[in-house]
Amino acid sequence: MKILLANPNITEAVTDVMAAEARRSASPDVEITAATAQFGAQFIETRVEAAIASHALLDILAAEADGYDAAIVSAFGDPGLAAAKEMLDIPVVGLSEAALHTAYTLGRRIVIICLTPRHRDWYGESAEAAGLRDRIVNLRVLPVAVRNISTVVEDLADPLFEECKRAVEEDRAEVVILGGGPTAGLARKISDQVPVPLLDGVSCAVQMAESLARLPIEPPRRGGFSRPDPKPTKGLSPALATYFEG
Amino acid sequence: MKILLANPNITEAVTDVMAAEARRSASPDVEITAATAQFGAQFIETRVEAAIASHALLDILAAEADGYDAAIVSAFGDPGLAAAKEMLDIPVVGLSEAALHTAYTLGRRIVIICLTPRHRDWYGESAEAAGLRDRIVNLRVLPVAVRNISTVVEDLADPLFEECKRAVEEDRAEVVILGGGPTAGLARKISDQVPVPLLDGVSCAVQMAESLARLPIEPPRRGGFSRPDPKPTKGLSPALATYFEG
Amino acid sequence: MKILLANPNITEAVTDVMAAEARRSASPDVEITAATAQFGAQFIETRVEAAIASHALLDILAAEADGYDAAIVSAFGDPGLAAAKEMLDIPVVGLSEAALHTAYTLGRRIVIICLTPRHRDWYGESAEAAGLRDRIVNLRVLPVAVRNISTVVEDLADPLFEECKRAVEEDRAEVVILGGGPTAGLARKISDQVPVPLLDGVSCAVQMAESLARLPIEPPRRGGFSRPDPKPTKGLSPALATYFEG
Amino acid sequence: MKILLANPNITEAVTDVMAAEARRSASPDVEITAATAQFGAQFIETRVEAAIASHALLDILAAEADGYDAAIVSAFGDPGLAAAKEMLDIPVVGLSEAALHTAYTLGRRIVIICLTPRHRDWYGESAEAAGLRDRIVNLRVLPVAVRNISTVVEDLADPLFEECKRAVEEDRAEVVILGGGPTAGLARKISDQVPVPLLDGVSCAVQMAESLARLPIEPPRRGGFSRPDPKPTKGLSPALATYFEG
Amino acid sequence: MKILLANPNITEAVTDVMAAEARRSASPDVEITAATAQFGAQFIETRVEAAIASHALLDILAAEADGYDAAIVSAFGDPGLAAAKEMLDIPVVGLSEAALHTAYTLGRRIVIICLTPRHRDWYGESAEAAGLRDRIVNLRVLPVAVRNISTVVEDLADPLFEECKRAVEEDRAEVVILGGGPTAGLARKISDQVPVPLLDGVSCAVQMAESLARLPIEPPRRGGFSRPDPKPTKGLSPALATYFEG
Amino acid sequence: MKILLANPNITEAVTDVMAAEARRSASPDVEITAATAQFGAQFIETRVEAAIASHALLDILAAEADGYDAAIVSAFGDPGLAAAKEMLDIPVVGLSEAALHTAYTLGRRIVIICLTPRHRDWYGESAEAAGLRDRIVNLRVLPVAVRNISTVVEDLADPLFEECKRAVEEDRAEVVILGGGPTAGLARKISDQVPVPLLDGVSCAVQMAESLARLPIEPPRRGGFSRPDPKPTKGLSPALATYFEG
Repeated sequence: MKILLANPNITEAVTDVMAAEARRSASPDVEITAATAQFGAQFIETRVEAAIASHALLDILAAEADGYDAAIVSAFGDPGLAAAKEMLDIPVVGLSEAALHTAYTLGRRIVIICLTPRHRDWYGESAEAAGLRDRIVNLRVLPVAVRNISTVVEDLADPLFEECKRAVEEDRAEVVILGGGPTAGLARKISDQVPVPLLDGVSCAVQMAESLARLPIEPPRRGGFSRPDPKPTKGLSPALATYFEG
Repeated sequence: MKILLANPNITEAVTDVMAAEARRSASPDVEITAATAQFGAQFIETRVEAAIASHALLDILAAEADGYDAAIVSAFGDPGLAAAKEMLDIPVVGLSEAALHTAYTLGRRIVIICLTPRHRDWYGESAEAAGLRDRIVNLRVLPVAVRNISTVVEDLADPLFEECKRAVEEDRAEVVILGGGPTAGLARKISDQVPVPLLDGVSCAVQMAESLARLPIEPPRRGGFSRPDPKPTKGLSPALATYFEG
Repeated sequence: MKILLANPNITEAVTDVMAAEARRSASPDVEITAATAQFGAQFIETRVEAAIASHALLDILAAEADGYDAAIVSAFGDPGLAAAKEMLDIPVVGLSEAALHTAYTLGRRIVIICLTPRHRDWYGESAEAAGLRDRIVNLRVLPVAVRNISTVVEDLADPLFEECKRAVEEDRAEVVILGGGPTAGLARKISDQVPVPLLDGVSCAVQMAESLARLPIEPPRRGGFSRPDPKPTKGLSPALATYFEG
Repeated sequence: MKILLANPNITEAVTDVMAAEARRSASPDVEITAATAQFGAQFIETRVEAAIASHALLDILAAEADGYDAAIVSAFGDPGLAAAKEMLDIPVVGLSEAALHTAYTLGRRIVIICLTPRHRDWYGESAEAAGLRDRIVNLRVLPVAVRNISTVVEDLADPLFEECKRAVEEDRAEVVILGGGPTAGLARKISDQVPVPLLDGVSCAVQMAESLARLPIEPPRRGGFSRPDPKPTKGLSPALATYFEG
Repeated sequence: MKILLANPNITEAVTDVMAAEARRSASPDVEITAATAQFGAQFIETRVEAAIASHALLDILAAEADGYDAAIVSAFGDPGLAAAKEMLDIPVVGLSEAALHTAYTLGRRIVIICLTPRHRDWYGESAEAAGLRDRIVNLRVLPVAVRNISTVVEDLADPLFEECKRAVEEDRAEVVILGGGPTAGLARKISDQVPVPLLDGVSCAVQMAESLARLPIEPPRRGGFSRPDPKPTKGLSPALATYFEG
Repeated sequence: MKILLANPNITEAVTDVMAAEARRSASPDVEITAATAQFGAQFIETRVEAAIASHALLDILAAEADGYDAAIVSAFGDPGLAAAKEMLDIPVVGLSEAALHTAYTLGRRIVIICLTPRHRDWYGESAEAAGLRDRIVNLRVLPVAVRNISTVVEDLADPLFEECKRAVEEDRAEVVILGGGPTAGLARKISDQVPVPLLDGVSCAVQMAESLARLPIEPPRRGGFSRPDPKPTKGLSPALATYFEG
C-alpha cells in the first residue's frame, strides 16, 4: 500500500518530522511518500494561512496523488480536507479528523493541546466542520512561545507534558490529543507518563488511512463528493487545470 | 463612502451583473468598485472551487482594498469570508451572511433557492459557518439546468419565481433568499409577486457593508480577527507576500 | 426616512438618552422620533416587567407607528419584538437583535456587559429567541449597583470600561456589547480604548433599521408574521382595538 | 388543596370547558377555581395576542392568587408562564409545559395537534422556551376551520381524531397531545381508540400542579425566579402595582 | 393505588431508606411496596454496574409488577428505565427523570449534587437520555468519601448541605437536586436552609408516578414502547422468559 | 494480533455469519475468535433485549477477553459497548460505532438501512450515544419481514439493494450503511452497484479494532473509563464476580 503524506505548509523540516512518525506508525507493507506545499506560509495558524494552504494542498494532490492508495492532509486543523476528499477517488484523511475519531472511541472528555493561541480557534472550527466538536471539553494553549517549528519535540517536550497533566487534573480529560503536526512523535515517547490515552495526529491518520484503503469501498459517483462536470478555469497550475478538464 | 465588491470567480460578466445591482442598492454617497478573481473557475459550486476562490479573493483584497471603507465577498456561499475579515481592517461582508442576517430579522422560516444541486450543500455549510443555519427550513434547487451563468436573470426568471412560490406553499417559508451572485437584480423585479419578503444577496450585502462602515467600530487589536505577527512565505503574489511581512 | 424609537419602559429620561444616541447614529436624511411607554415599570429587568412592557410597546406602536419607515424596540432584551414585527408592515428591530447581528459579522466570541444580575438571564433568553445565542461566550454583570438609570453613562463609565477589559482578558472576547438602553452613547466614547470592537445597541439598531427600510422588501402576506384575521377583543386601548378590527 | 385556573383569553365559555375538565382530573381533596382575563382577545393565536394575554394573566394572578396552593396558566402555548412563575410563591404550571413533561415520560416521538396554523408556530416556540422541543417530531394542523371556539369538543371530535390517527401512521408518533385549551375533555373520550397515549393539557396540568404542591419545596429566595426589589410603576392595575411595591 | 419501588442495586438497607421517603411522600391512598435486585453490585456507579443493574431491574419487574398501578426505578441515573417503560403496561418513572422534570418547572439553572465522581458522568448521560440535559449547569461531587452507603443521610448531611450552598453561590443554581437514592429523605430536612428549591429523587418520583397513574392514559399498542412479538430466549429467569413468550 | 468478536445475542448461526466476514476483512496477521452470548434473546431489537444483551456481553468479555489485543461488540446498535470499554484494558469497538466513524470520513449525508422497524429507534439512539447522530439523514426500514435471521444475506439481498438505491435517490445519501450483524458480507458483494460508498459494520469494526490495537495507546488510569475500586457483588457469574474483586 502507498500513502501520500501532503504537508500544506512550506517547511520541509516539518514534513520530515511528520513523515518519520508516519513511517514509525505504518504497517510493514505500507510505503509513505511525503510532499510539501510549493507556496504559502512557514506555519499555518490563521484563517488566511489556512485558506492559502488549502489551495496549495490541492495543487500537491492534483500533481502527485496518482497511483496512491490513500492520502493524508498532514496539518492539524485539516486545511482543504473536504475539498481534497471531493477531488480524489482514494481515501483522504486529516490529522485533526483522525485524532478526533480515534479519541471518540476511547473516552467522553477530549482535550486538545495547542502550540499557539491562534490554533485554539482553528482547531475548534475544524472539529466543528468534522462534526466532532461536542466531546472536546477544552483546547489548551502551551504557555511558552514556539521559537522553532521544526524542533518542537526536542524543545518543548516538558511544557507539552505539563499541559497534558493539567488537562487530566483540571479538565478531567479522558483522552488528550497533542495538536499540531510539529509535535509528531512525542506522544509515543511520553504516553506511559500520562494517565489517560494520549494521541498524535500523524499516527492516527496513518492508521485511519490504512483502514479506509483496506475496506472494499467504491468512490462516490453521486452526491457532493463525486466528480463534478468539467468547467473552464484560468491561472491554475497545469495539474489543477487538468483536473478541471474532467 | 467607497465599497470594494470582489468577485471570487473569474467571470467578469457575472461581476458586472452583481456590480449593477450593488449600485442600484447603494446609498447616493456610496461608490462601488468591482474586481474579479485572477485565477480559479468560471463559477463556484464545489469545495475545490471554493478553496481556490478563497485564495484568489485574498489576492484581490491584498492588492486592491487599500483606501476602501468596506468590502464585499461577492459570491453566495462566502468563500474566504472569515479569512478576509481577519486580513482587513475594514468591515467585510459576504452575500450569504448578509442575506441570512437580514432574513433572521424578518421571519423564522427561511428558504434559499439554489441554482444547482452542488450549491445546496455549500450554502448549507456556509450558513453553519456563519452560525445562521438553524432557521433555514429548506434549500431548494432549480429544476432546470443553468446554461449561461451571465444571463440567469433573463433566462431563468420564470423557474426561479416558480421555486419561490413552492417555497411558500410547500415549506411554509416566511422569507425567501435567491441564492447565487448571478441572480442579482431579480429579487427587486418579482418581490411584489411573492407573498413573503424576497431577498437578494448583493443588495443585502451593500446595505450591511454601509451600516458597518457607518458605525464607530475600531478594528480588533486582540483575538482571532486581529493582525497576526509577520511570517516567512513562499510563492505568493507580491501583495499577499507584503501582507505577511506585517 | 422616519424612524420611531419606542422605549417600552416608562422613564422619559432614558428615552432621551437613547434618542440622543439614535440621532448621533442616524444618516443625515433620517428623522428619529421617540416615544415612551404609558404604563409599566421604571426599568425592565424581570420577566414580569418584560411581559408588561411588551403590551405597553404594542400600545405605542398601534397608536404611533403610522407614517414611519421603520421602528426600534428600544430596550435591550427586546421585549415584545416578535409581536411588534408581526403587528407592523414596516421593519422593526430591537437593540439586542441589532447588536448581536452586528457582532456576528465581526467576531466569533461575543460578550455582553449587563447592568444588573437579572439582565444576564433575560439577555441570554432574548438572544436565544433571536437564534443568536451560540456565539455569546459570557454575559458579565457590572459589580456595582446602578443608582440612577438615567445617568449611567456619566456615573458608571469607569466600571463599564473595566468590565470590557475583563471580557477581553478573561473571556477572550472578540466583540463586546454594552447591554442596556441606558448605556447608549458610551461605546463611541471609549471604543478606542477597548482592543476589540465595542458595540452599542441603539446605534446598531438605527443602522439596521435604515438598512431594512432601504431594501426593496415587501411586507409578508403569508406565514406567521402576516396580518391575521380580525378578532373580537375587550378592554384594549383604542389603537390596539382598532388593530384587531383588521 | 386549592388550585387557581387562570384563562388568559377573554372567553368565559372556554374557561368553563377547561374548568370542567380540570375538576374531572383533580384528586378528591382539590378545589378548582377558574378566572378569565379582563382584557385581550377572544382566542390566543398570534404573538400580539400572546403578549397582551401575558399581561392580562399577571393581572389575574396579582389580584386572585392569594390563598391558593398552585396556579395553572390555562392556555396551550403558556403565555406569560415564566413571568407568572417569577411572580408567585406557589407552583405555577402551563398546559403546554405539563403536557410535554408528561409526554416525555411516555415516549420518544411526540406530536401536537393544533387547531389553527398560527398555533403551530406558537406551540413550537413555547416548547423551545420550556426546553422541551427536541422530541416533538411534528405539529399537525386541523384541516378544517374552527368556527366556534367554545364548542370544539362537540364540533370537531371527528377531524381531531382523524389527525391523531395520521400522527401515528405518518409521523410514527409514540405520544399525541391535543393542543389548545378548547379541546379540554376530548382526550379522555377517545383515548382508547388511539393506539398510543393521548394527552390533554388541562388534565396534565392539574396533575402536575397537585404534585408540585404536595412536594416539600420552598419558594426561591435567590436567582431569576425570586422576588425582585420594589420598583416605581405607572398605569398598572391596583393589584399589579401592589406587587411592584414589594 | 399501589406503587412498586424497585431498587436495582443489591443493598436492602438502601431500599429501606428509599421506601421510607417514598411512604412519607405518597398520598394517603397510595401503598408503596419495595423490592431489591437479586444480583448485581452493592452500589451503582459505573457503566458496568448500570448494565448489570438494568437486567436485574427487568428481572424484578417481570416477576413482581403484576397488579401495581405504577413502578419506580429507584436508583438515581435510572438504569434500565427505558427498557422498563417498554416492558410494562403501567407507568414507570426513574429518580433522575422525575427530579429533572420537576426541576424544569421550577427554574432555568439546575445543579445536581453527586455522592461520588463516577456518578457525575453517569447522571449527565442519563439526563441526556431523558432529553433533559440542557438546563443542568453543573454536576458537583461531594468532596468527602462515602463510607457507608446506607447511612448517608446521617453521616453526610453537613457536607451535602455545604455543596448545596456552593451550587447557589458559585453556579447560580435556581434549583438543586440531591442525587443518589441513598440521600432520600435529606432534602425535606434541610430545604428551608437552602435559598432555592431543593429536590429529592424519591419524593419527585412518587409524585410523578401517582400523577401518571391518575391520568386516563392507555398503554401504547404501536411504536417503540409497545409490546413486541414473542421471541425465543435462553438462560433467562422464569418470569423474564415468560415475558418474552408474549 | 488476536481479536475477540463477541455476539451479544444467543444465535450461533449469526455469530458464524459475522465471524466469516470478520475473517475476510482482517489483515493477514490477525486471528479472529468468535463467542456467543450464553443468555438472552435470539435477536436484539428492543430496549429490553439490549439491556439483557449488555449483561450477557459483559459476561462473555469477563470470561474470555484475556489474551486478546482488541474486542468487537458484534451487534449493530452496540449493546453494552460503553460498559465494555470501561471494563477492558484493550480497545473495544462496536459495529454501529465503527460504521459511523468510517462514514463520517466519507460523506456528509449518511443513511442506515435497518432490518426491522424496532431497529430504527435503537440504531438512532446508539448513534446519539456515540456522539455521531448529526450526519444521519435517514434510517430506512426494509419493507419486507425478516423470516430467518441467519440467512439474511441470501434471502434479502434484493430488497436490501433496492433500499440502498432509494437512500441515494430519495435521501441524497452520500454514504449508506447496511445495519444489522446478520447482513455481514453483503456490502462487499453489491458495493459496485451502489453509486456511493456502502459500509458493513463488521468489516469497519475489524479495521477499527486493528487500528486501535496498533496505535501506542495506554489504557486509562484516570476518569470514567479507568478501572474502579473493588465492590461487593451478589449472584454474578464467576468471571464477572472476579472482575469486581479488582
